[in-house]
Amino acid sequence: MSRKEELSRHAARLFAEKGYHGTSIGDLADSMGVQRGSLYAHIEGKEDLLYETMRDGAAAFHGALNSVPDGAAPAEKVRLALRAHMRVVSEQLDVATVFIQEWKYLEGERLEEIVAERHRYEERIRELFREGRDLGELRADLDVTAAALAFLSAANWAYTWLTPGSDTDALADRFYALFLDGFRGYSAHS
Amino acid sequence: MSRKEELSRHAARLFAEKGYHGTSIGDLADSMGVQRGSLYAHIEGKEDLLYETMRDGAAAFHGALNSVPDGAAPAEKVRLALRAHMRVVSEQLDVATVFIQEWKYLEGERLEEIVAERHRYEERIRELFREGRDLGELRADLDVTAAALAFLSAANWAYTWLTPGSDTDALADRFYALFLDGFRGYSAHS
Repeated sequence: MSRKEELSRHAARLFAEKGYHGTSIGDLADSMGVQRGSLYAHIEGKEDLLYETMRDGAAAFHGALNSVPDGAAPAEKVRLALRAHMRVVSEQLDVATVFIQEWKYLEGERLEEIVAERHRYEERIRELFREGRDLGELRADLDVTAAALAFLSAANWAYTWLTPGSDTDALADRFYALFLDGFRGYSAHS
Repeated sequence: MSRKEELSRHAARLFAEKGYHGTSIGDLADSMGVQRGSLYAHIEGKEDLLYETMRDGAAAFHGALNSVPDGAAPAEKVRLALRAHMRVVSEQLDVATVFIQEWKYLEGERLEEIVAERHRYEERIRELFREGRDLGELRADLDVTAAALAFLSAANWAYTWLTPGSDTDALADRFYALFLDGFRGYSAHS
């Protein structure tokens, strides 16, 4: 691992644990066992590291969604997307925590860029639900906005309770089953 | 409003905006337009204010849940609990944000107390679903743990996207309708 990559990893871990504002360049240097001054060869300041963690997060979530096969049936795509998202949260818990929780501390163009990436991701999730509705696999009157919010809530909120090493595929499938058929379970009446 | 209450409000707002670690006693004094030293008449340190905000949050969420009538039908209780929770998030967005996001910065017994309050609240939500299942209003094979997590995820995650003044009752009802009948909508086949 390059010194730069090592720095990014330590930054993500410290930002996730102590918050962006709770982490100083001195903390980073201590955590890596180097002199504080040596870090300035790689970064201008702490915000560079926050921005890189956010870009890593955006790339991880978009990359996970890209892994869902285009040709899968719409509801199956929702299931696979939920698995993929929760896997990122679990496997890259530090990056995901920072991506979800600390984005607001970015400033200027970097903030705009990351907010736009978040919106683009949310729109891709809504599109999955739209496709499912339009192709008749999901209900014709599906509330696409609420469905995407429920998906993102369940998948993102996991960063607060997931323990490392959890079987997130099984958890994602439980949410999927619950979301698809509902809490009331019409199947009992049909 | 007493000086102490004013201090609590400013603390909740600053902790929500800048994070607990991003807020100093100096920031608090500036925000209130008083001398820093004068705040020490009311608190020993910043952690007192975090702890109070967390207690306010716990009391608000439990109080909201207490407002759900015992005699209501189980599914209706879920709907009213979702409304009540989202109303707290919206009406006390600062307190809710700190409660949801900054609790981990408490220490020792205070951390234990607040974690216990969170668990007690989560257990009350699970109990609503258990009751619905046992009384036959919700599906007999309901995954109570996943249902409670989906409820809490949707209700809590709202702190990241709710705009002040949103009609949270309407939003809560949309989630409720979606959760109860599911994304697939078996009713179409029954």
